[in-house]
Amino acid sequence: MFVVPLIERKRDGGRLTASEWRTVIREYTAGRMPDYQMAALLMAVFLRGVTDEELGALTDAMRDSGGSLRFGAGTPPRVDKHSTGGVGDKVSLVLAPLVASCGVAVPMLSGRGLGHTGGTLDKLESIPGFRTDLTLEETRRQVERIGCAMVGQTAEIAPADRKLYALRDATGTIEAVPLMAASILSKKLSEGLDGLVLDVKRGSGAFLPGFDDAVALARSMIALGEARGCPTVALFTAMDRPLGRACGNALEVEEAFAALLGEGPPDLMGVVYALGAEMLVLAGTADDTEAARRALEDAIRSGRAADTCRRLIEAQDGNPGIVDDPAPLPQAPAVDVYVAGRDGIVQRVEPRRIGRGIVELGGGRRTMDDRLDPAVGFVITANPGDAVARGEPLASIYASDSAQVAVGRRALDEAIVLGDEAPAEVLPLVSHRVSRAGIEEG
Amino acid sequence: MFVVPLIERKRDGGRLTASEWRTVIREYTAGRMPDYQMAALLMAVFLRGVTDEELGALTDAMRDSGGSLRFGAGTPPRVDKHSTGGVGDKVSLVLAPLVASCGVAVPMLSGRGLGHTGGTLDKLESIPGFRTDLTLEETRRQVERIGCAMVGQTAEIAPADRKLYALRDATGTIEAVPLMAASILSKKLSEGLDGLVLDVKRGSGAFLPGFDDAVALARSMIALGEARGCPTVALFTAMDRPLGRACGNALEVEEAFAALLGEGPPDLMGVVYALGAEMLVLAGTADDTEAARRALEDAIRSGRAADTCRRLIEAQDGNPGIVDDPAPLPQAPAVDVYVAGRDGIVQRVEPRRIGRGIVELGGGRRTMDDRLDPAVGFVITANPGDAVARGEPLASIYASDSAQVAVGRRALDEAIVLGDEAPAEVLPLVSHRVSRAGIEEG
Repeated sequence: MFVVPLIERKRDGGRLTASEWRTVIREYTAGRMPDYQMAALLMAVFLRGVTDEELGALTDAMRDSGGSLRFGAGTPPRVDKHSTGGVGDKVSLVLAPLVASCGVAVPMLSGRGLGHTGGTLDKLESIPGFRTDLTLEETRRQVERIGCAMVGQTAEIAPADRKLYALRDATGTIEAVPLMAASILSKKLSEGLDGLVLDVKRGSGAFLPGFDDAVALARSMIALGEARGCPTVALFTAMDRPLGRACGNALEVEEAFAALLGEGPPDLMGVVYALGAEMLVLAGTADDTEAARRALEDAIRSGRAADTCRRLIEAQDGNPGIVDDPAPLPQAPAVDVYVAGRDGIVQRVEPRRIGRGIVELGGGRRTMDDRLDPAVGFVITANPGDAVARGEPLASIYASDSAQVAVGRRALDEAIVLGDEAPAEVLPLVSHRVSRAGIEEG
Repeated sequence: MFVVPLIERKRDGGRLTASEWRTVIREYTAGRMPDYQMAALLMAVFLRGVTDEELGALTDAMRDSGGSLRFGAGTPPRVDKHSTGGVGDKVSLVLAPLVASCGVAVPMLSGRGLGHTGGTLDKLESIPGFRTDLTLEETRRQVERIGCAMVGQTAEIAPADRKLYALRDATGTIEAVPLMAASILSKKLSEGLDGLVLDVKRGSGAFLPGFDDAVALARSMIALGEARGCPTVALFTAMDRPLGRACGNALEVEEAFAALLGEGPPDLMGVVYALGAEMLVLAGTADDTEAARRALEDAIRSGRAADTCRRLIEAQDGNPGIVDDPAPLPQAPAVDVYVAGRDGIVQRVEPRRIGRGIVELGGGRRTMDDRLDPAVGFVITANPGDAVARGEPLASIYASDSAQVAVGRRALDEAIVLGDEAPAEVLPLVSHRVSRAGIEEG
């Protein structure tokens, strides 16, 4: 019952000391503080907030609940990227091998999809044989050997966060800026990084659609990272429409392979290059983002990026040939084309509706226990602002059977809105850059 | 997971429908909604509040989670009293038989002590053999036969409240006005009442020490009761010092018997008569509080009140002779006198410190599982404003041994403050009366 006075203090707008946060996280992780007391404390934090000092103490306590990656002195600089989550966002699949092929180590810890957003782990697991459950030690050795690894959060990494995240999901306390920042940074700070780039999504498909919340989250994470010796930069990218064309696990993997082979859609490549350039600059392997971008483009053109991807897949027990021939990826039994029902101009492609459509097709989770069908989803070629004619193909639907094709069709009917005027403005692909120096446009 | 959107809505300041409150209470009581989700919802209610309509729906749902008392057509009018809890507050022990002896039925449902406050059930159980675990049916029959019963909350009465109260106690959500009002009224409205009188304590020893909170709680409870056909009145009474002289379970029972025999201390009798007069007026057996007070005084003077108390004790398996000879009550092995350490004027007698002192002596609970020593406590004869001389007795200490006497002495050292000036003003014994017509002084 030591914790009731702490809950009451936070409830009344007070603050907890660093030692109190450590105790709370230690007792909760060990199962000695029950879920219901943590739920009350999380709701009080949601509604009352925490100070910067409290947020640091909470993040440290969550990080220290598990182990961390410790690299040898000769390892190249390590940089990772984190995204706040979107639809069609296969950036990590391209970025990890691409940046690694430029001489920067990328020990990438990824999550699963929940709600309307996809998860990198789910996408990777659509590659036959691909293992994501590497131990910390296996991850370290692989990063030292081939420059990158893409793994899931094991019980070794920030176990407090795993437990807290599941509780937050069940208690309406997901969308609190400090709790999101602490969750993300507690894991990333376990990776032994020299730099971290954050992809903060904005627009209707983002978890925090508003600009002010996005700024608050970016600033929180930057302050946390910088204060712990991990230089951190955030880019705001557009999630008012899906990113790229493919939406769905195996479909996105195929698009990511195409991107590594030089065939990526322009919006996807725009985000990949913008984030990758920040990673190279943070690692010190490029002087500025212009030079970094040239290095990234060259890594794709030369085939080095795709080659690193093949080595990554082979190291994690997949067949490297899949990069060049994606036929072994799971294939949906029923595929159909979705065409425009009228002449008009594409007003918007609503990412939340697309994300929910993937869940309805069986390719996303309603609860953490759901099994996924990796083959299903959409490939959407229509973009906001496109003029289209009745009968013109706008997308393809990948489903388990023809009844499910109809489910996908309904999702697209609602997500792809046609009209007669020019559409309302879409968000710039990369709208802002936030660093400890401040916030700048573009 | 149906409940997450409801938690989120309350978190964001929205309201739940009556049907949603019914579902939440039903699922929680049945164990299908976990404690951690209810804890998050309770904290959101604490910080965001509820509308009057929501409070009514919540209270109804809690009441309807269990059974209720249904009296036959010939039963006298039923009225009960509820106190928000204090130190030395043995009013119920006097009031139930006293009011019943005036022709008003009193089906009194009481609680246990927790924190610094005592509980009527604990006091009653210091009477050898006395049973408080009557079923609803036994309670009904006894009230119809002798006019009163004093029982604990069984699993039959508002089981949702039992479960919620334990959770609130462990999650820092006790002191929320709407949750307090719903808890109290959900039980009282199960008693089949024709009227309810509330004793809302004010001052440093009250759960809600502030005037505004006391008004809000009284108004909430009055609105809930009146809207459900139960006329409700509240009196604000002083809890900036203990009520009466005895503080401790068996000691308070002895003082209550003395009061029924016409030997009660004036402050206790002032509160008893004020609350009892409201009960008689609500029941319609007196035209106004003046007439009611005369009837109550006569019931004590004539011996009818003590006689009803004897019948009550006999009906619930105690020895009725204990009213006249309290020797069979548990007796503390170590008794000592506490004297003034200096000449001076009593500045205050701090009820919270006295209440904690009783807990330290073993007469109160730290957790719901603690067993009590009913014999221990204090009899405090000094009152704020009394001029005392060094060495003059101010109180007696009742403890389990001489080491515990020293523990009691420390509590009195801190609780009874002597000074040289006249003390700061004490609260009037009965400061306000609140009814649906409004709030009036005195």
